[in-house]
Amino acid sequence: MSFNVPKTDKKRVVIVGGGFGGLKLANKLCAKHEYQVVLIDRNNYHQFPPLIYQIASAGIEPSSISFPFRKIFQRRKDFYFRMAEVRSIFPEHKIIQTSIGKVQYDYLVLAAGTTTNFFGNSPIEQEAMPMKNVSEAMGLRNALLDNFERALTCASDRERQELLNIVIVGGGATGVEIAGALSEMKNFVLPKDYPDLPTSWMNIYLIEAGNRLLPAMSEESSAHVEKYLRGMGVNVLLGKMVTDYDHHSVKLKDGSTIATRTFIWVSGVAAEPIGNMPEQLLGRGRRIKVNACNEVEGLDGVFCIGDQCLMTGDPAWEGGHPQLAQVAIQQGNLLAKNLHRLAKGKDMKPFRYRNLGTMATVGRNRAVAEFSKVKMAGFVAWVMWLVVHLRSILGVRNKIIVLFNWMWNYFSYSQSLRMIIYAKKAKEVRRREERLASTHWGTDLQSEGSEDLQE
Amino acid sequence: MSFNVPKTDKKRVVIVGGGFGGLKLANKLCAKHEYQVVLIDRNNYHQFPPLIYQIASAGIEPSSISFPFRKIFQRRKDFYFRMAEVRSIFPEHKIIQTSIGKVQYDYLVLAAGTTTNFFGNSPIEQEAMPMKNVSEAMGLRNALLDNFERALTCASDRERQELLNIVIVGGGATGVEIAGALSEMKNFVLPKDYPDLPTSWMNIYLIEAGNRLLPAMSEESSAHVEKYLRGMGVNVLLGKMVTDYDHHSVKLKDGSTIATRTFIWVSGVAAEPIGNMPEQLLGRGRRIKVNACNEVEGLDGVFCIGDQCLMTGDPAWEGGHPQLAQVAIQQGNLLAKNLHRLAKGKDMKPFRYRNLGTMATVGRNRAVAEFSKVKMAGFVAWVMWLVVHLRSILGVRNKIIVLFNWMWNYFSYSQSLRMIIYAKKAKEVRRREERLASTHWGTDLQSEGSEDLQE
Repeated sequence: MSFNVPKTDKKRVVIVGGGFGGLKLANKLCAKHEYQVVLIDRNNYHQFPPLIYQIASAGIEPSSISFPFRKIFQRRKDFYFRMAEVRSIFPEHKIIQTSIGKVQYDYLVLAAGTTTNFFGNSPIEQEAMPMKNVSEAMGLRNALLDNFERALTCASDRERQELLNIVIVGGGATGVEIAGALSEMKNFVLPKDYPDLPTSWMNIYLIEAGNRLLPAMSEESSAHVEKYLRGMGVNVLLGKMVTDYDHHSVKLKDGSTIATRTFIWVSGVAAEPIGNMPEQLLGRGRRIKVNACNEVEGLDGVFCIGDQCLMTGDPAWEGGHPQLAQVAIQQGNLLAKNLHRLAKGKDMKPFRYRNLGTMATVGRNRAVAEFSKVKMAGFVAWVMWLVVHLRSILGVRNKIIVLFNWMWNYFSYSQSLRMIIYAKKAKEVRRREERLASTHWGTDLQSEGSEDLQE
Repeated sequence: MSFNVPKTDKKRVVIVGGGFGGLKLANKLCAKHEYQVVLIDRNNYHQFPPLIYQIASAGIEPSSISFPFRKIFQRRKDFYFRMAEVRSIFPEHKIIQTSIGKVQYDYLVLAAGTTTNFFGNSPIEQEAMPMKNVSEAMGLRNALLDNFERALTCASDRERQELLNIVIVGGGATGVEIAGALSEMKNFVLPKDYPDLPTSWMNIYLIEAGNRLLPAMSEESSAHVEKYLRGMGVNVLLGKMVTDYDHHSVKLKDGSTIATRTFIWVSGVAAEPIGNMPEQLLGRGRRIKVNACNEVEGLDGVFCIGDQCLMTGDPAWEGGHPQLAQVAIQQGNLLAKNLHRLAKGKDMKPFRYRNLGTMATVGRNRAVAEFSKVKMAGFVAWVMWLVVHLRSILGVRNKIIVLFNWMWNYFSYSQSLRMIIYAKKAKEVRRREERLASTHWGTDLQSEGSEDLQE
């Protein structure tokens, strides 16, 4: 195997990760034809995280909020997409090692985002269901529906209770949104689909260690959301720490337990790790420390943008910017400009975050939104949430499909996609994965993990 | 675990399989409230086989041609759905053993359809990709897209050729339709998505052991379809037998080989096996022999309908009816009437197949259709194909989504859903599957496989 990107007289920018930041950067760079652009992602598609929870609750399909990179960049010159994972960086040689071979860069941009943070608790990591990407969300949907089916025929009342209880850990936007969506499923779908299962058996717990939901928003919005969720029957537990999960039982620090086989973990994120990144370059949440121009300090020609980086020193955001789409998009945008300035021999400009506001929804007609001094809650906020998110989804086709699904689900009071489907993995693909997993990835430049992949 | 369906004073009809036949029967029985109806299926949804090939070619999503059973039967009285697999039948006790426990029946209707027939060739069974259900079709789509990605970075030209060649074995409707869809992908999508991969490297082979494609249709239609496919660049090989698959190479009986890692097997079907069904009750293709009223000969109160059964003696169809949706639907319909006649003490009526015609499409503007004496080919047949299939898809929502996707793909000349996505299986679900797989299923009534499933 070889990375197989031709060498031209243009300088090469390698972008790791096609999320909001990486995609914006790649698009802007391609438009000016100054650089050769190489985009690396472990998936062949861009995904839209704000709506991933709706995949889990059977409201929309993964394909409606995903978009193939190759389609986005059709007919772009000097652009190369490679589906691969990055293993390590050799900054002194300006080379990265990936799962499909080595590639040389002139500028390297890390934009790989975050991964679920289990805070080192390995029983929880083993058992909990995270919800960071479309694949995990599909798995959660399947497990949820499977649990409902099993609840009808299981051996004991205790098992039935485990199968029907849902525990969500983490009171941020994702936790709030999935709690709302699942409580709508409980109230509107369960009684019709499973008349033999008393709805009262299904309890939804939303557990947050802090003293309020949506800690990133105002106390007013937190209060609204808590009221909405309680009104929909969600058990909101504040100031409670989850310490363990064992024998289908979630353990809290205060000694109490909750029986469940649907244990959803959306409690925090850590920056996506890059193999041999020196420890001293990492900050809070393992985010890579960057200066005001998103340069990784000490690594020549290496940048980091979006959720994966930590930029301190912005007076309004002393501890670093929030890990939101807007920050990533604005940083991708600025870095494209800065790379063009570098090409012309000009100095780079520092990043300045423009806060466009934050919002969260808990279900039909209910949301909260904040824009600088304006705070909203209820129906108007909900409509705004819909419009803002619909506008942000990539592609006309996807916009139409998502809007149609939303309308359908709204008027039918049901999330329609209640099928348990797993793609059957072809033997050829399984073999390839096993080979990749058994490959030893050296951390020095000479060791050539990828050679082992040849047949 | 227990099957957990309450005993009432109504007689119980247990239906195994929710395909065209089983679904029609269950619907008709529910409408008259004469019986308690129990529907068993290994999936929680009905699927629409005629369009499964479009899932594989990334044109539509599984959810667009699937429909949850619980949604279909919402608010039906005396109806029970159970997601389970049938292990064995004990006709002398009128009991079946399933993966979730035993259940007693008054009437048992087998409607489990067919499975892929590898004709005992185990290397092929191990390696080939079948396309009988939505899960296999999703797996095929993912493998196909993965192969394209790998072709860009693989080690040798030989491997690249293996990754880009596609071999389809079986010249029936499914083989013809997937060959057409993939050649459209080759011609319209590949050059735009993979400008570095010369289209000429991608060869599509359609191999049929007989001397013409679509053997179930007229020679005229066969000739049309062959001409269409050749015109689209498909290598149609007639009168060729595939004997083996080894080291990414398909071996033909004449000694020639074709290198490929995309080896699609749609060459034949065998009736879905039922654990302890006596051999003497099975006919051609392991189909269960039934009389003109779909009764399994020798098993009191047991019926079999659709693709799974073999009804000989119909003068027009001496060797048994074709395994088509229409036969299953008509048999399901008649059996519902016959069961109602039985309840009233009347005699059952024999089955008479009304042939509504057959059709197949090879892609945009091209199809063949036959209705008794009328034969059509080309654009008109293609429009008819679209209308007939759209009408047959269950649910208004699905009809709209499929129509939208068809229109989008037609005008954009591209199958849009080119994402490689696998649902991540939750640990709880994996554990459950392992437990089930390790359960010993006895073939006598006393052995209680399902007991082992308790925790």
